[in-house]
Amino acid sequence: MKDFWYELKHVCKQSGARYGILHTPHGDVETPMFMPVGTLATVKGIAPEMLKEMGSQVILSNTYHLWLRPGEDIVAKAGGLHKFMNYDGPMLTDSGGFQVFSLGKTRKIKEEGVYFKSIIDGKSLFLSPEKAIDIQNKLGADMIMSLDECAPYPATYDYMKHSVERTIRWAKRGKEAHHNEKQALFGIVQGGEYPDLREKCAKALVEMDFPGYSIGGTSVGEPKDVMYKMVEDAVQWLPEDKPRYLMGVGNPIDLIEAAIRGIDMYDCVLPTRVARHGALMTHHGRMNINNEKFKEDFTPIDPECDCYTCRNYTRAYLRHLHKSDELFGKTLLSIHNVRFLLQLSEDIRKAIQEDRLLDFKEEFLDKYGRDVYKRAF
Amino acid sequence: MKDFWYELKHVCKQSGARYGILHTPHGDVETPMFMPVGTLATVKGIAPEMLKEMGSQVILSNTYHLWLRPGEDIVAKAGGLHKFMNYDGPMLTDSGGFQVFSLGKTRKIKEEGVYFKSIIDGKSLFLSPEKAIDIQNKLGADMIMSLDECAPYPATYDYMKHSVERTIRWAKRGKEAHHNEKQALFGIVQGGEYPDLREKCAKALVEMDFPGYSIGGTSVGEPKDVMYKMVEDAVQWLPEDKPRYLMGVGNPIDLIEAAIRGIDMYDCVLPTRVARHGALMTHHGRMNINNEKFKEDFTPIDPECDCYTCRNYTRAYLRHLHKSDELFGKTLLSIHNVRFLLQLSEDIRKAIQEDRLLDFKEEFLDKYGRDVYKRAF
Repeated sequence: MKDFWYELKHVCKQSGARYGILHTPHGDVETPMFMPVGTLATVKGIAPEMLKEMGSQVILSNTYHLWLRPGEDIVAKAGGLHKFMNYDGPMLTDSGGFQVFSLGKTRKIKEEGVYFKSIIDGKSLFLSPEKAIDIQNKLGADMIMSLDECAPYPATYDYMKHSVERTIRWAKRGKEAHHNEKQALFGIVQGGEYPDLREKCAKALVEMDFPGYSIGGTSVGEPKDVMYKMVEDAVQWLPEDKPRYLMGVGNPIDLIEAAIRGIDMYDCVLPTRVARHGALMTHHGRMNINNEKFKEDFTPIDPECDCYTCRNYTRAYLRHLHKSDELFGKTLLSIHNVRFLLQLSEDIRKAIQEDRLLDFKEEFLDKYGRDVYKRAF
Repeated sequence: MKDFWYELKHVCKQSGARYGILHTPHGDVETPMFMPVGTLATVKGIAPEMLKEMGSQVILSNTYHLWLRPGEDIVAKAGGLHKFMNYDGPMLTDSGGFQVFSLGKTRKIKEEGVYFKSIIDGKSLFLSPEKAIDIQNKLGADMIMSLDECAPYPATYDYMKHSVERTIRWAKRGKEAHHNEKQALFGIVQGGEYPDLREKCAKALVEMDFPGYSIGGTSVGEPKDVMYKMVEDAVQWLPEDKPRYLMGVGNPIDLIEAAIRGIDMYDCVLPTRVARHGALMTHHGRMNINNEKFKEDFTPIDPECDCYTCRNYTRAYLRHLHKSDELFGKTLLSIHNVRFLLQLSEDIRKAIQEDRLLDFKEEFLDKYGRDVYKRAF
């Protein structure tokens, strides 16, 4: 993969966190970084130009959703996801596994893959490791994911052991099916809360020599301390010269805690999803724009934020738009929340370079509130 | 009104249409012009910067809606509508009359004003000519409207006669209540389909010497030929040195027909409302983005359009966003339709200056389709 490699630039002396550059076919990005999610080839409500202005580096799209609508062949005919959605920066797609496994009882897991029914038209569908690669090849993101089983939490040791073994076999099948040199295929470390299974999975994947590694099976209902432990259990077996991506994480404190544990990338729909309901991340903790007290408040959401929304609009106006269910309100609140996590990523990178990420964490918690460990954000 | 005046620059030798400059406290604008509607202090889904980029000159907000939510006092405390919504170009507000009269049986018209119940919380409210001015003074738009009775169509001669007389008395009361030199108060010519009542109303208002005149009671269900006649019946009595605003008109052909009859300004929610449902205006007629045939169509909505959407996105992508009910899809389709009417306004102005608006109309109809007279757009 001459177009894709991770360059470790600095390890924080205080925390062990990594600052690096990820080189991709669509440009270089700095890590650790939060990746906004554009499920259906659009980060909900945010124009591509605005994403760039906000400092977004990599955006993520969901294979499962695009497979069902509009279909990967249409995206391929458009010239790939970049052209289809008019975004020329680096992109990442997931394998579709997480969504398919979320379907619960309506899907059947077999060795060959997963059978399930489309939520759109009820049609029978089949997702295999090869199919996941085929779809992602057609979508054309810079980074793509192996199909894994995202097992439920909690799962028994026995269940998880069999699941991990299948995830390893599926990773191998996916790797064999993947032939596009412009796309870096990541292996996904599963294993739940069992350190030996995380070790087994990580080692097997590292032996296959992927250009990057993901950590999956997190953010599925486990307590935060369990998640942090899962990250530690996995990361220790991963090579230093490859990027590490913690999937589905977007709680501000988790960005910091994961970086401390050696993570380089994370993504989550959290900032846009909660924004559409008026819930905001700020440097002084969580804020709900619906609150009556903002009715005549002509200050920005977060005076420490440099986003388009905070530069131009007041809490009173945003509350008005939100209460009126205006489209532009959803866009403005989404911009703020996404920028908050991008800005936090920038602050994390700076703290790493200054060897003070643990101090930064304490300063962050003093302002944001220490109860953030107990809630969604 | 030293900050507000209309400068007639050219009369089309072929059609009699006017090209002019309207000078306002927030800048000069060229007429004839279409004004996008931002009902609740936001043109649905479109950022103020984009409105400017699109060539939007004046935007309109609705007094009735802003009175109910967030309330004119909050807008006033924000420093007025311009600051509240972060738009520093010229603005216009209506009187609230159209919306209140649309409430039907739930409102009671008296000489002193209109009694009705809030659609938001059921609270009893009262809109008088003075109250309409007071609210609009607080909102602070460059152009504001007198409270008029927007009578139903059809209405008996007798009903319309009494209604027009009240509209004239209300215009006088509004004028007496208005003391802000930075806001140009327009009188509204009513009179339905009765030429003598249009004449009576126009003459009475002209005698009061308003800085601009609106034509109301159109777009309330009457056939197009009736509407065009109403415009003719009203315009002939209006002074040449004042702007003429035809309220609630946004069908492309109506922009042309109204300009031919001496109209300088028009507004309508049509372009944004239909866009949110996937219906688009193009140089080759109406288009519905939901159509199956656009599934793999990687051309822009309208190759002759220069809008942000047409420059950057394909029919296939827009169809995908629309079918997925994505926010960004609504924004992109709204941008296109609004730009279509702004671009049409530009073309109309050019044709007037070249003394060929009637030729332009025929060319437009050849491409857009002559059945446009029979449908909403």
